[in-house]
Amino acid sequence: MSDTPATALASVADAYVASWNEVEPAPRRAAIARVWADNGAYADPLMKSKGHAAIDDMIAGVQNRFAGFVLKRTSNVDSHNGNLRFAWSLGPAAGPSVVEGVDFCRLTSDGKLASVVGFIDKMP
Amino acid sequence: MSDTPATALASVADAYVASWNEVEPAPRRAAIARVWADNGAYADPLMKSKGHAAIDDMIAGVQNRFAGFVLKRTSNVDSHNGNLRFAWSLGPAAGPSVVEGVDFCRLTSDGKLASVVGFIDKMP
Repeated sequence: MSDTPATALASVADAYVASWNEVEPAPRRAAIARVWADNGAYADPLMKSKGHAAIDDMIAGVQNRFAGFVLKRTSNVDSHNGNLRFAWSLGPAAGPSVVEGVDFCRLTSDGKLASVVGFIDKMP
Repeated sequence: MSDTPATALASVADAYVASWNEVEPAPRRAAIARVWADNGAYADPLMKSKGHAAIDDMIAGVQNRFAGFVLKRTSNVDSHNGNLRFAWSLGPAAGPSVVEGVDFCRLTSDGKLASVVGFIDKMP
């Protein structure tokens, strides 16, 4: 993946972020299927999931608990050797963020998300 | 690894950092063997290595190019689910850093380094 253009890597990150913000179940599941590898795995200090269905359940759960919150990418997408990192915030669409963190992602050879590991920098 | 005490995780990070600063070949190789899994892999934007011998060659090369530079951990060790992150600096033992970055590490189930992925936040 080290030869993947930076714009393509940013597109993966943005498609991933968009999947968190898609509240309609069918397009959310489609977005997850496009961006994640089949056995892709997510982990942060609070949540874990593996595979498209579990990732979808996790995102739906967060959307239900924090209705109206929007995930935003807040840094450039830094990448090398199939690894990405970018900073993000979660909170109301307008106004200050509630949670902030960094996602560290590993891509498969065909440019899908094999794993996303989130770390938290700000939490209430 | 999620049950590994925070102090043990910080010890892994510190043993890893110490291996970069050990300039005597025999103790450096021993330090690498203690902290890394057999097939452990390192990657940052400039260097890659896999396995103890290649990691040792890489570190020796950096020590030769930047004689007197010291790697320092500059943040807490943040961890969950067998993943670590910490910030670091590289530069003369006294005086301002030359390079700064963040390492993301994945541990094996027995607490050794399976992978370290470095990202650069400051470089000349």
